[in-house]
Amino acid sequence: MAAPELRVIGLGGLPEVRPGDDIAALILEAAERQGIRLRRTGDVLVVTQKIVSKAEERVVALADVEPGPEAARLAQETEKDPRVVELILRESRRIVRQAGPVLITETRHGFVCANAGVDASNVGQGLVTLLPEDPDRSAGEIRAGLREGAGLEVAVVISDTFGRPGREGHTNGAGGIAGMEAFVDYVGRMDPYGYELRVSTLAVADELAGAAELVMGKLSGVPAAIVRGYAYPKGSGTARDMIRPAERDLFR
Amino acid sequence: MAAPELRVIGLGGLPEVRPGDDIAALILEAAERQGIRLRRTGDVLVVTQKIVSKAEERVVALADVEPGPEAARLAQETEKDPRVVELILRESRRIVRQAGPVLITETRHGFVCANAGVDASNVGQGLVTLLPEDPDRSAGEIRAGLREGAGLEVAVVISDTFGRPGREGHTNGAGGIAGMEAFVDYVGRMDPYGYELRVSTLAVADELAGAAELVMGKLSGVPAAIVRGYAYPKGSGTARDMIRPAERDLFR
Repeated sequence: MAAPELRVIGLGGLPEVRPGDDIAALILEAAERQGIRLRRTGDVLVVTQKIVSKAEERVVALADVEPGPEAARLAQETEKDPRVVELILRESRRIVRQAGPVLITETRHGFVCANAGVDASNVGQGLVTLLPEDPDRSAGEIRAGLREGAGLEVAVVISDTFGRPGREGHTNGAGGIAGMEAFVDYVGRMDPYGYELRVSTLAVADELAGAAELVMGKLSGVPAAIVRGYAYPKGSGTARDMIRPAERDLFR
Repeated sequence: MAAPELRVIGLGGLPEVRPGDDIAALILEAAERQGIRLRRTGDVLVVTQKIVSKAEERVVALADVEPGPEAARLAQETEKDPRVVELILRESRRIVRQAGPVLITETRHGFVCANAGVDASNVGQGLVTLLPEDPDRSAGEIRAGLREGAGLEVAVVISDTFGRPGREGHTNGAGGIAGMEAFVDYVGRMDPYGYELRVSTLAVADELAGAAELVMGKLSGVPAAIVRGYAYPKGSGTARDMIRPAERDLFR
């Protein structure tokens, strides 16, 4: 029996991403420089939210931000920069939890995450990045760019770092996807013993993003990775499919 | 620049695991049959909780279980088998959430999960498996077995399927670990722009378990995988490190 195997190949050597850059083109160039040929079908490309935000001009100079009164108040309570809090509020529908320096909000996309994804890491001094306006659309555009530029049919995952209620530490998950379903659904399938599975819907888009993080790291200058050898579920799912509606969420 | 790369190699062809079986020995035999040589250092071995539970005699015949009055009551509310509910209660410290058929408890280990890990899948008719008594210890025993049997120094992750509050679907996470830390901590490290990271502690043991799930699947008869090429954080961490204490948990 041949061993099932997947490979996660980091793509480094991208230039600093600038507003308006074509991520698909940068990926193809970086792959070529590294001697990696993306396969015509079957590869999954994972890219960090950070470079997508940079390309989509979702970078804000804090010097240009004028905090309002609510931001000023919350900034004092959380000991954050009031301009950062102002951006968090603008990016959010509501505050979900606030405790000490922690501010967890529901973003306009519906993601529940720390600081609405407003983040000062891996961007220049005095700048912060916001999440893409629509990460699923962003993934779709990268996917279309790879198809048009090189005839590739890949799935695309935009990865982001998420905290987990009840569990310490963060993992990378899928903030946006294109060309695949978010889940592999085992419900109703029989195990080898004839037992019908009832509850196993695996969020494989999140697992792909986490696997890619293992080669991308936070500081390694590897903002993209190819997952090769995984028979991902083709389809037109979205990362929004993974957001549990409040009425189904036992922990809200 | 050479591309950083990791491989996830599924190990199939294990025999049906029976009480008292030596998982380390079964892994070495399966690897040899597949022509896979584990490296002396650097590999991470991921094995499913299911085969560990079977080897550790954590399999219960429902016919032998006598449900008590609380189990009988809860079984009616959740429409579960009263004998399964009895086992769930025995395995739990407390019920965390109950809604319709969903019963989320805190296990005696401290894991917050559905049904305390009591599971009827991938085991014979009329049987259920319980979680290992101490999955970190189980991982340590497998690790020791690989060292003694073949001179290997690998990290071991016992994977399990977890739901996520706020997010649809399950992912595999680490229920037990040995020979590694659960986290890679970026807090205090500088990004390439001179910004000091403040919040990024990556739960890489969970990401390893998720990556392995992509080759193991739920039904594929691949109960173990080797992750090769990942410079995992050596150490003596535990999966318990990932359980957020209730007082730090904003969502409890």
